Amino acid sequence: MALYPGTEQDRRVDAGALGALVAAVFAACGMRDDDARLLAESLVDSDLRGIHSHGVLRVPDYVEKMTAGGVDPRGTPRIVGGRGAVVVVDGGNSMGQIGGTFAMSRAIERAREHGVGAAALRGSNHCGAMDRYAMMALAHGMIGLAATNALPTMAPWGGAEKIVGINPIAVALPAGEERPVVLDVAFGATAHGKIRVYHQKGHPLPEGWAFDSDGVPTTDPATALVGLIRPIGAFKGVGLAMVAGMLSSLLSGAAYGLESGNMVDGAVPGVDGQFFLAIDVSAFEDPVRFGARADAVVREVHRARRAPGVERLYVPGEMEADFTQAYLRDGIPLNLQTLADLAAAARARGVDVPAGW
Amino acid sequence: MALYPGTEQDRRVDAGALGALVAAVFAACGMRDDDARLLAESLVDSDLRGIHSHGVLRVPDYVEKMTAGGVDPRGTPRIVGGRGAVVVVDGGNSMGQIGGTFAMSRAIERAREHGVGAAALRGSNHCGAMDRYAMMALAHGMIGLAATNALPTMAPWGGAEKIVGINPIAVALPAGEERPVVLDVAFGATAHGKIRVYHQKGHPLPEGWAFDSDGVPTTDPATALVGLIRPIGAFKGVGLAMVAGMLSSLLSGAAYGLESGNMVDGAVPGVDGQFFLAIDVSAFEDPVRFGARADAVVREVHRARRAPGVERLYVPGEMEADFTQAYLRDGIPLNLQTLADLAAAARARGVDVPAGW
Repeated sequence: MALYPGTEQDRRVDAGALGALVAAVFAACGMRDDDARLLAESLVDSDLRGIHSHGVLRVPDYVEKMTAGGVDPRGTPRIVGGRGAVVVVDGGNSMGQIGGTFAMSRAIERAREHGVGAAALRGSNHCGAMDRYAMMALAHGMIGLAATNALPTMAPWGGAEKIVGINPIAVALPAGEERPVVLDVAFGATAHGKIRVYHQKGHPLPEGWAFDSDGVPTTDPATALVGLIRPIGAFKGVGLAMVAGMLSSLLSGAAYGLESGNMVDGAVPGVDGQFFLAIDVSAFEDPVRFGARADAVVREVHRARRAPGVERLYVPGEMEADFTQAYLRDGIPLNLQTLADLAAAARARGVDVPAGW
Repeated sequence: MALYPGTEQDRRVDAGALGALVAAVFAACGMRDDDARLLAESLVDSDLRGIHSHGVLRVPDYVEKMTAGGVDPRGTPRIVGGRGAVVVVDGGNSMGQIGGTFAMSRAIERAREHGVGAAALRGSNHCGAMDRYAMMALAHGMIGLAATNALPTMAPWGGAEKIVGINPIAVALPAGEERPVVLDVAFGATAHGKIRVYHQKGHPLPEGWAFDSDGVPTTDPATALVGLIRPIGAFKGVGLAMVAGMLSSLLSGAAYGLESGNMVDGAVPGVDGQFFLAIDVSAFEDPVRFGARADAVVREVHRARRAPGVERLYVPGEMEADFTQAYLRDGIPLNLQTLADLAAAARARGVDVPAGW
């Protein structure tokens, strides 16, 4: 995961108050109250996990999508296909969190019946961080997997044309006494937003992050911004991204790659797609034994010898769970600019902002 | 994939003749004829795809496993659990190719009935390249996924202890007129065998391949051989490897990580595990439309602008399919040492080697 060091420009905000304000903003965009709460919760949960890139920072963009950008705030997902352990869902041009939550819930239902269940979603939009959907499976003693399209920022390996997104995949596996293993990875060596931060600060990029628009490695952030994100592991990363994108698009009939938009003009509303899979542990193995063995995997990492200067080893998802624990207690550290943008978006929709915000 | 440049030390060998010889060697180890043919075919198919690291180079090692190493040449896989779309298979300490082919076939059967099917395998051993199992789904109009454990060669991110394998995943997706997309990736930045080649030749390693035994980056091959393989994408790659390993082990009750052996003492026989998934395209989408859209994804890559000096862009699996076409026509280029080792293994089992081999 990305680490965002705290600064004096941060203020601590109570998660509950934040969620209530954001839900009110989304309701004022025309969303039904339960959908508005779900969408707000999804963003606040990302902030609680330290994934601020997918947190309430997104509120102004989401408001824009639902009020002027063509996304239907009252869009309603429905099952349009599938058989047996499979469902195909049309999100009805709702925000991706609405359709994604619906689709993953159906995959979990099917997995309870068949041992494994899959859902493909079309008619969708930006759906936030993928870990949320994978983690929905955990409460049911299941392994969850979620994948999505992203707007193209990479080229095929050896190429110089932006036709592949960093298309992330998240997987969550339940443990016993330890916290679950939750991996959420995009297949780019970096993210567009991180290059923007380096550009603003005038720092050169680390080696291995980006190509220029001819596919030649660069460490100049301005060149990289109009160039290409480099995949992790060269051909491996872009191959994994293509697979994640094809699963997310081709099974449901959603848009693939440039069909879903581009980084200049933005996303085409209502054509995005996601893929969800739920695997019921109890169909394979005694869940207690599975949990104990998962605990052993986690503890083996904790006990392992560390490289010089490393204080602690984490299993995927543990650092995020630590953030959640701390931020629920102490408040979520949010950038003053994020808070100001959120307040402006709220006032513009006629929503009262608490005094002292 | 790895590229192995041809040299004057290579000789072209007919795939059919090679398969017959290798099958005879495995039959002479006590395997049933059909199992011997399947195992031989799996290795020859890897050579045909240019993946010589998983080709007939492995014959002496496989003979050793089945005659002295504790693997049962007559081991017989059987279903021991599962429900609905899920099967759990015990390989009966057969070579992984025997149990893996059995398990993936069951996953495909279950997917035909339920839309998606999964199989977890225990009681298994080394199973060769994973692309084979994923590709089994293609003839059924399905997407295939296969994952396996590998002996630990990586540390958790920030760690210095070999407890995570490079645990590969393969995914195969059918196309229409184009060749299928077949991705087979391990999550290490390199492989142990490649470091050995650099060591033999006395060349320094490329940056980013390895750590020393304290988890500090190194380009010295001797240091790397006793050190750690570096994951692709830092924490992302080792996280993906952990997930692939947990799916391959914990669902079936197979060994995880060091439970399955280590690079010094080798693999413990009969405790390895794999995971297989089959997704029936027709449960989601009109297969003709899916194929046409997959074709469009492939052709978009072919048409894309290239970086300077790049002649052609490939979709995952296409380069391997090109090798197969050429090698079926012209023979498989095999290293003279590989051929000599194969002949010695054959003669040691009393198998006649064709004249001029």
